Amino acid sequence: MTKRVYNFYAGPATLPLPVLQKAQEELLDFKGTGMSVLEISHRSKEYGETHTQASQLLRELMGIPSDYKILWLQGGASTQFFMVPLNLQVKGKPMEYVQTGAWSNKAIKEAKLYGDVKIAATSEDKKYSYIPKGVKFSENAAYAHITGNETIGGIEWHETPKTPNGVPLVCDMSSNFMDKVVDVKKFGVIYAGAQKNLGPAGVTIAIIREDLLTRVPENTPTMLKWKIHADKDSLYNTCPSFAIYICKLVLDHLKSLGGIAAIEKTNHKKAKIIYDIIDKSSGFYRGVASPESRSLMNLTFNLSTPELEEKCVAEAKKRSLIGLKGHRDVGGMRASLYNAMSLEGTQKLAEFLTEFQEQNEKTSTIVSKQL
Amino acid sequence: MTKRVYNFYAGPATLPLPVLQKAQEELLDFKGTGMSVLEISHRSKEYGETHTQASQLLRELMGIPSDYKILWLQGGASTQFFMVPLNLQVKGKPMEYVQTGAWSNKAIKEAKLYGDVKIAATSEDKKYSYIPKGVKFSENAAYAHITGNETIGGIEWHETPKTPNGVPLVCDMSSNFMDKVVDVKKFGVIYAGAQKNLGPAGVTIAIIREDLLTRVPENTPTMLKWKIHADKDSLYNTCPSFAIYICKLVLDHLKSLGGIAAIEKTNHKKAKIIYDIIDKSSGFYRGVASPESRSLMNLTFNLSTPELEEKCVAEAKKRSLIGLKGHRDVGGMRASLYNAMSLEGTQKLAEFLTEFQEQNEKTSTIVSKQL
Repeated sequence: MTKRVYNFYAGPATLPLPVLQKAQEELLDFKGTGMSVLEISHRSKEYGETHTQASQLLRELMGIPSDYKILWLQGGASTQFFMVPLNLQVKGKPMEYVQTGAWSNKAIKEAKLYGDVKIAATSEDKKYSYIPKGVKFSENAAYAHITGNETIGGIEWHETPKTPNGVPLVCDMSSNFMDKVVDVKKFGVIYAGAQKNLGPAGVTIAIIREDLLTRVPENTPTMLKWKIHADKDSLYNTCPSFAIYICKLVLDHLKSLGGIAAIEKTNHKKAKIIYDIIDKSSGFYRGVASPESRSLMNLTFNLSTPELEEKCVAEAKKRSLIGLKGHRDVGGMRASLYNAMSLEGTQKLAEFLTEFQEQNEKTSTIVSKQL
Repeated sequence: MTKRVYNFYAGPATLPLPVLQKAQEELLDFKGTGMSVLEISHRSKEYGETHTQASQLLRELMGIPSDYKILWLQGGASTQFFMVPLNLQVKGKPMEYVQTGAWSNKAIKEAKLYGDVKIAATSEDKKYSYIPKGVKFSENAAYAHITGNETIGGIEWHETPKTPNGVPLVCDMSSNFMDKVVDVKKFGVIYAGAQKNLGPAGVTIAIIREDLLTRVPENTPTMLKWKIHADKDSLYNTCPSFAIYICKLVLDHLKSLGGIAAIEKTNHKKAKIIYDIIDKSSGFYRGVASPESRSLMNLTFNLSTPELEEKCVAEAKKRSLIGLKGHRDVGGMRASLYNAMSLEGTQKLAEFLTEFQEQNEKTSTIVSKQL
């Protein structure tokens, strides 16, 4: 049996072991072709089946209506940050964004290159520690944009905001894609880098309501038109076939577990285990996010000093709990509990955090008494 | 031992068996981390080493001077078709292209969105069956662009054309990247989709002379500026880490074979084996490309009828020779002999083509006699 650690990285992130095993098993011989999936033509029958199945599985698991197209793209959510305004801008209409942290700020920066951007709501006043409530978008907005989950701050939208009639809601779901059941009909566009809940780095999913495909200006570069990729079933040019193949295996696995409703239950259980430890730690662990906006996926917390945080990360590593350091921009600690993180891994982390507190509070107490 | 066929697909294409075996072996445990390379953070120390080594190996094997940056991008050469004019256009100066087939035409189409495009030379008159000779570019051109190899027509530049002082030469080397020694200094920009000679689909290499990084307009989307990726060592956003890892293994393998000079010799040998059969077939096989422009990588030929071609492809498949059908736009047959196609595989193809001719000429003769 290969050694396996518990991987709490924010992305690329842990993948289900059965997916990796299957990929390993057939890496030299894809479907009995005598070729690796890494080598086979993206226009071969054998790859074509996998390509189609990946989309079908996603449609089935998320309940994506038939008037939405599923695109498998490249370039990450960072590329969608400008493809969204490029494909959806309407002259004279503002593009409206909710500002909730580093990722929404990146999206806003790119949109400003294309026209008038309005901040519909912001949580900048409290260092992006919460999701604004009761957000109102203008009736004349070209579109409304939210960031479903901010990986750095560790906050998540738990309800889908309403937009006025005719204003499509666009959501960057990179870090909470398929973490819970959502009603796709409430969105005009959903996009997500795959490398958290869906697969490896190198493929980006976009789910787009058909009527939104035709807004794009004619003189746009071919590769930047969603419509081209929709019309060609994401095979206008060579697609990132291996990454899509892995996504297909992840979707198979998710289906075998009972689909998104089932994983949502597990995700709530997992998050509760860790948030409970934080809340009951009498301030030893301090949650960063406002409780009602806490992310199911990225759990952010601080200890009393950066030194203690560093010690905590290092000792966790000795226990095979990897990737707990917070984002370099904000410091602190972060445990990413994506779909593929097991309940078992979460419990190991919980046990460790409890012990770490016991050991390090004692030390503090002893130190205090000595002084 | 796993079954293995001979894969003559034009791309994604055959990869060296030792590369696939190594990837398979460590797919569940990358460098003893207890994580797959598919799961590990792109900012981890372990992945970082691989990332750096991939660039270093490429620099060493191609002799890339220190004033050139190496970028690992996404979106394929199709994305570079518009990123080239976007990053290199100069107001009032024409962008000059040599038109040699389907791929150069795609590049030209995107460039026209950005300004004045001049066709410096074309082989359209003979259905793109040759590379124009003695091409002259204007002294005031913003840049000169060639397509190093046209996979569909099967023609290749065997010498690098000269450009006037100060006019950077840009080359799409997607399908002949590292197939022979080239002097990188003669180019301003080299770009290539990896999925032929370098790795799997999903990563694009760009080699750019530093002084060309700063022409890009300020108001360009972040992800479309070469400079951003150069400054951030291709880690501005999440890179396609697994695809880069496979490229690194391919580069290791190429180095172990003696580098590009060694593979160039083998490539000439392989191409000669098949072109000799075509030339000595008394017209049974008809080469598509003009002899002096013949590609080392994509060997295109026709038989007397589409039916006979179909029969040839089908019988080859029975002998585990896969992917010999010509591109859907032009029909005919095509054998892609990329770096990873072995001499042995090429010889098997040669034997098959010889036998197929014998059997099918006989049949024709018998039929003729009976009539």
